[in-house]
This record gives sequence, C-alpha cells and structure tokens, in this order.
Amino acid sequence: MNQPDNDVLAAVRFDANGLVPAIAQQHDTGEVLMLAWMNRDAIAETLATNRVCYFSRSRGGLWRKGETSGQVQHLKELRVDCDGDTLLLLVDQQGVACHTGRRNCFFRAVRDGALVEIAAPLVSPEQLYGEHKHG
Amino acid sequence: MNQPDNDVLAAVRFDANGLVPAIAQQHDTGEVLMLAWMNRDAIAETLATNRVCYFSRSRGGLWRKGETSGQVQHLKELRVDCDGDTLLLLVDQQGVACHTGRRNCFFRAVRDGALVEIAAPLVSPEQLYGEHKHG
Repeated sequence: MNQPDNDVLAAVRFDANGLVPAIAQQHDTGEVLMLAWMNRDAIAETLATNRVCYFSRSRGGLWRKGETSGQVQHLKELRVDCDGDTLLLLVDQQGVACHTGRRNCFFRAVRDGALVEIAAPLVSPEQLYGEHKHG
Repeated sequence: MNQPDNDVLAAVRFDANGLVPAIAQQHDTGEVLMLAWMNRDAIAETLATNRVCYFSRSRGGLWRKGETSGQVQHLKELRVDCDGDTLLLLVDQQGVACHTGRRNCFFRAVRDGALVEIAAPLVSPEQLYGEHKHG
C-alpha cells in the first residue's frame, strides 16, 4: 500500500471533536452491524493493520474492536462518502458485533406501533467480556 | 399505528445538538445509501408519513428527502441500536440517494493505496436540482 493514509485523511471532514462516524457493514451479506466513531489515529491504524480500530467516546481513547471480546472486525474496504463526513467500513465480523451478544446492534424495530426486539443474543455479555465492558 | 413516536423517542439518545445519526439502507438489496441526521421532529414526521425526513445541519431545518430532487425515500422500517444513539432506516429509495447523482454516497474507496471513485453518476446534479442544492 502506498501510504493511503494521507489520501484518505485529506478527504475526511472530522467534526469539532476530531471524529467521524463509521458504519460497519458485513462485506458479503450487506448486514449493517454497528456505527462507531473514528479519529485520525483510528483510521490510520485500521488501514495499516486491516483490523478495525475505533475511537471510544466513553473511554476517550482508541478502541481496537475485539481486543477484549475477541469479536474482531477484519477490514475488507474503507469507503468515504460524498461530503467526507461519514465512513463505510466493509468488514468481516468475527462472531458478534454488539456488546449485548447480538450479531448487530440494530435489534430494536418499530413494528405495529411499538419498539420491539427482533433479534436475541447469540452469546451472553458475560461470555464476551467477563467483567469488562467494551467490544 | 399506536403513536409509536413516544416509544421510539424515549429510546433515542440525542446528542448535545438534539440530533442522532441515521443510516439509510435500501431494504431489499442491503445497499448502504447515505448517513444523515435526525432530530425529534424529523423522526416523528418520518414515522407519521413513512417518507424519510432528516434534519439538515447546514440549513438548520427539516429536510424532506426528495422534496427538491424527487428522490424520495419511503420508510420500510426504523430500527434503533443498542445504545439508542444511532438509527437504521430501511428504505425504498426512489432514483438516487446522493446529491452527486450517484445511487449511494459511498462512491470513493481505498484501493491499492489510493482513494478512487468506484461509481459514476446516474443523473447529473443539474437534472436533480436545477439551481437548488439539497436532496
């Protein structure tokens, strides 16, 4: 790779906090897994390693997806939107993306006038994290 | 519908600006079309009409997708993520989602170390907007 970082980083419009939202989509099925945030360092590390690294707003630091839970996201392709203010990550998700143990984070839907759960956990959070928190 | 607004709005964690990011995905193909932002009124109107309405940060007001361009998004289902801070809209996109005339906004990808365009416009912005701007 010929230093894609500069090219990409120049195209990204970070917000006032230096962050940009990144959508993670399973590359082969099209399933939208989650949305998280990236800063410059997270993008650079993700492109360098092909393992997705976010920026955790709650912890205020880099969040290497799966470092605690083992539920790693392998990067297949990184895309930038027209305005440069959103990223789309095509990934291969190992296991489950959601910290609740569900495959994706969007398991609540408005149906017949109510917000209902449409997917059950595949593994328990305790199995994923023990006493830890982030994925 | 039994007033889903209250249920949904109670589940959403809006940011300091009263906004939440919303991912629009074509309901049948899985294509991720765009990301935009919604406030309370945009969510309520979208659920009431089943036509997607965002909040335009640049214009500071409701943005009824397609009101200028005709490229309307019909809502098929609204989902809320685990933390309530992202929405996923399953939609039926009429025409193109991107203001550049492309089907979706994520037409730039990192490939072989460079950011390259991977999709061409299907219609010209002039055809979509004349002298107007937003979609």
